[in-house]
Amino acid sequence: MEVVKTIDAARAAIKQARQQGRTIGFVPTMGALHQGHVSLIEAAARRCSFVVVSVFVNPMQFGPGEDLNTYPRPIEHDLAICKERGAHLVFAPSPQEMYGTECLTWIDVERLTEPLCGPFRPGHFRGVTTICAKLFNIVLPDAVFFGQKDAQQAVVIRRMVMDLNMPLEIVVCPTVREPDGLAMSSRNQYLTASQRSQAATIYRAIKHGEDRIKRGVRDAGELVAAVTDVLRQVPGIEIQYVRIVDNETLQPVDPVSGKVLVAVAVRIGSTRLIDNIVVDAG
Amino acid sequence: MEVVKTIDAARAAIKQARQQGRTIGFVPTMGALHQGHVSLIEAAARRCSFVVVSVFVNPMQFGPGEDLNTYPRPIEHDLAICKERGAHLVFAPSPQEMYGTECLTWIDVERLTEPLCGPFRPGHFRGVTTICAKLFNIVLPDAVFFGQKDAQQAVVIRRMVMDLNMPLEIVVCPTVREPDGLAMSSRNQYLTASQRSQAATIYRAIKHGEDRIKRGVRDAGELVAAVTDVLRQVPGIEIQYVRIVDNETLQPVDPVSGKVLVAVAVRIGSTRLIDNIVVDAG
Repeated sequence: MEVVKTIDAARAAIKQARQQGRTIGFVPTMGALHQGHVSLIEAAARRCSFVVVSVFVNPMQFGPGEDLNTYPRPIEHDLAICKERGAHLVFAPSPQEMYGTECLTWIDVERLTEPLCGPFRPGHFRGVTTICAKLFNIVLPDAVFFGQKDAQQAVVIRRMVMDLNMPLEIVVCPTVREPDGLAMSSRNQYLTASQRSQAATIYRAIKHGEDRIKRGVRDAGELVAAVTDVLRQVPGIEIQYVRIVDNETLQPVDPVSGKVLVAVAVRIGSTRLIDNIVVDAG
Repeated sequence: MEVVKTIDAARAAIKQARQQGRTIGFVPTMGALHQGHVSLIEAAARRCSFVVVSVFVNPMQFGPGEDLNTYPRPIEHDLAICKERGAHLVFAPSPQEMYGTECLTWIDVERLTEPLCGPFRPGHFRGVTTICAKLFNIVLPDAVFFGQKDAQQAVVIRRMVMDLNMPLEIVVCPTVREPDGLAMSSRNQYLTASQRSQAATIYRAIKHGEDRIKRGVRDAGELVAAVTDVLRQVPGIEIQYVRIVDNETLQPVDPVSGKVLVAVAVRIGSTRLIDNIVVDAG
């Protein structure tokens, strides 16, 4: 496995792989890799013959007051995981390498960035779409792998790829969870032991929502109230949103029909956590 | 020369050329081809072994009240020119093909789109950058050819390419002019005979500005006044702007130094015309 820090070196390594007739699978990450990332690397390795993982904590997708400075950066640990799980190239650029000259160009995806996390993280999604476009243009992948946990991110990026005719496929892989159901996230390590046990409630809450839909409830207000009730049982959880939205448009659906997301964002202490579950309401 | 109307057919033809080891030169146009476009096609043919010309009147770069509906679309004439000048592929999609599903994704280049034509054509540059990104992602060219007449467009697109790490080179070719100096433009054909003769004043005005700089004038106000005076001698010309700006940042420079643009936008009747000249003020 090769590790490169410059755009030129990444391009050279990938060009060589292309010339050998290999297909390029790409897993963009902010590092602090966990089992969710592992599942993406493994999915890429099953599907493509050359797997590129980027490790870059993108300053442009953090808002003021967010955790840019404290975000974990365990690069040796990350490289070991990449190597063990079959990555061929790790691209770990500095912010200077990615934004050395001031970036004046921004990509915005309208409408899909407005609901859910949009109001809570102004500027976040344009940071995500812009860095993804940059990375895609460097890596030129056949397929890019994202996790379902960040459902809105996946929908937004898929739309950007479609609208801008980017020649690549977006593959969304299932959320990987801890034994108690908590979705794997690099931010889980911010949690104290008691917060960590509170955090398991998030999955219980969205599962409860799924369960109610499967039992025939179609009233969105009733479903939101049911999910909210589960979260409210734990005093340490501050709810940002509980929503039932269409899985593609991310717009509210009421009565609930088709494939919907039961989506939740909470804060536990100073840690923001999101999770969701896709339910087919028929 | 092949002519295709769908994205899939364009991709297939270009992929085949790539597999033959050819380099791809791309000339994006709105059709109504003139000698300026011819020079771009010829530059692409000198530099690359497979030349793609797109002919697409992009609705998204026209503002309300602009000439989208009357913009000339002489497709047979355009195809003849492409063939004669060495294009290998013409991509002439419908608006439906390019924007069939509603486009929610937009690319904005900050700052560089604000001066000069920016205030007169709100939304124009985001239309240009977005369609260019779409076309670049379809054609995947090694080099793309633009004309110096649209100086701000070239600066904005070059910046987008740099900021988003697009793997291609932007080549800007000199403005091609009529014998009396009028810059070639598809919009020149809107002019009546008397407007056409008035339009020659634009080049005389910017040449006058160049002349004053070469004679040592460095005061931007004095230079703008000198250019404006030439334009004002012709009653049919309505001035939108006369500016002396840095050739890269497009910001005003005073006293004038380095490479500057003497840039002008006017209306003659209902026709909007722009022109510029690059001067090295040392």
